[in-house]
Amino acid sequence: MVIGYQTYLDHIAPWLPGREVVAGAMKQELARGRLALERAMAGARVAVVSGGDAGVYGMAGVILELAAARGLKVAPPGESGPVDLHLEVIPGVPAVTAAGALLGAPLMHDFCAISLSDLLTPWEIIAQRVRAAAAGDFVIALYNPMSKKRHWQLAAVQELLLAAKAPQTPVGIVRRAMRAGEEVILTTLGEMLSHPVDMQTIVIVGNSRSFVYGRYLITPRGYLDKYALPEEAR
Amino acid sequence: MVIGYQTYLDHIAPWLPGREVVAGAMKQELARGRLALERAMAGARVAVVSGGDAGVYGMAGVILELAAARGLKVAPPGESGPVDLHLEVIPGVPAVTAAGALLGAPLMHDFCAISLSDLLTPWEIIAQRVRAAAAGDFVIALYNPMSKKRHWQLAAVQELLLAAKAPQTPVGIVRRAMRAGEEVILTTLGEMLSHPVDMQTIVIVGNSRSFVYGRYLITPRGYLDKYALPEEAR
Repeated sequence: MVIGYQTYLDHIAPWLPGREVVAGAMKQELARGRLALERAMAGARVAVVSGGDAGVYGMAGVILELAAARGLKVAPPGESGPVDLHLEVIPGVPAVTAAGALLGAPLMHDFCAISLSDLLTPWEIIAQRVRAAAAGDFVIALYNPMSKKRHWQLAAVQELLLAAKAPQTPVGIVRRAMRAGEEVILTTLGEMLSHPVDMQTIVIVGNSRSFVYGRYLITPRGYLDKYALPEEAR
Repeated sequence: MVIGYQTYLDHIAPWLPGREVVAGAMKQELARGRLALERAMAGARVAVVSGGDAGVYGMAGVILELAAARGLKVAPPGESGPVDLHLEVIPGVPAVTAAGALLGAPLMHDFCAISLSDLLTPWEIIAQRVRAAAAGDFVIALYNPMSKKRHWQLAAVQELLLAAKAPQTPVGIVRRAMRAGEEVILTTLGEMLSHPVDMQTIVIVGNSRSFVYGRYLITPRGYLDKYALPEEAR
């Protein structure tokens, strides 16, 4: 059987006919995870679908947390010996690198991913991570920048970042990467609040060396500092 | 034509017969990028192959940096108007999430990627990022932990991290993720130097809440803190 959030099941609709499918609503991650475990324990072969990479804020952790809390013995497929459950996590293209590809090459140097959702994480921990990311001059990818009920977090992050970074720092905003309705916007840290964002948006804030070239956001790795030909020297 | 580092061309060998292929050596990223630009400018359709995701320490940035340095006008395929070059970056599964999937779910909360190669980046910048990542309690993925010529960086990082994190902090070491010779090791921050690592290894250091369960490294997102059923309470 296949279990997933309805939006993600829609993306894989061509592969679903003939299979048992259970669609869940947003915020029902635990219910989906419990159902998957129960059906798998009862002998079914179960696929749980996530958007992007299942291991990045996705269902892989939900399933494993539940299995651990219930004391189930889990092992990879093919493992011999007594186990309650065989489990395989299949990696995918995470939203951060899908967004990065549409922006060009913003993630070519050290980066971090921070979710701005404070439903499960206290805001002070999120704020501490934003400050640390700025202190480390990381490229910063913001997941879940805003939802229907969460409005102030992105402005708070902008304020934290402006304490350490220039307002001209380039920012890329990607909505619905690689899906219908895809939008790609180049802006700056100072101006980034004037563009709409939502739960399907990734915001990528450059490091101190990131720059915009035409339609692209580029974070240099440093090759040309060291090995540029005369015609490539800036 | 297809251009790539030989190791990555080997992975896609079934798709190469009948095509013009140019294999490059390691550390010749600029040479490969220049060749790709020159051939594309001359009218060829060129694919440049990277391992993992081309936008994460990969060839996407090399090509775009070179195009920018040479002042070429670049645009996505299908863009009308005068351009020197049409370019599309295709995202992939980055090594960090491939390694994460094999470890279970270490990347379920905010994480960062840091390359320990100081060939192009001064060590002090790398050290500053490691300190910042520890201060932010990020899950930390270390790329390029060691090479044939670089031996001391991982020990230096361990020392920086031990100043801020417990020696029992769980660490996952994944070598050749999803390739022949794949190895997955669970260890701790204090013990991590006793396992061999190389340029094909990703080291993932947990945050303060990451834990080992059986064969898996799990970073909790926080669902069970808030919504656990009685039988799931730890």
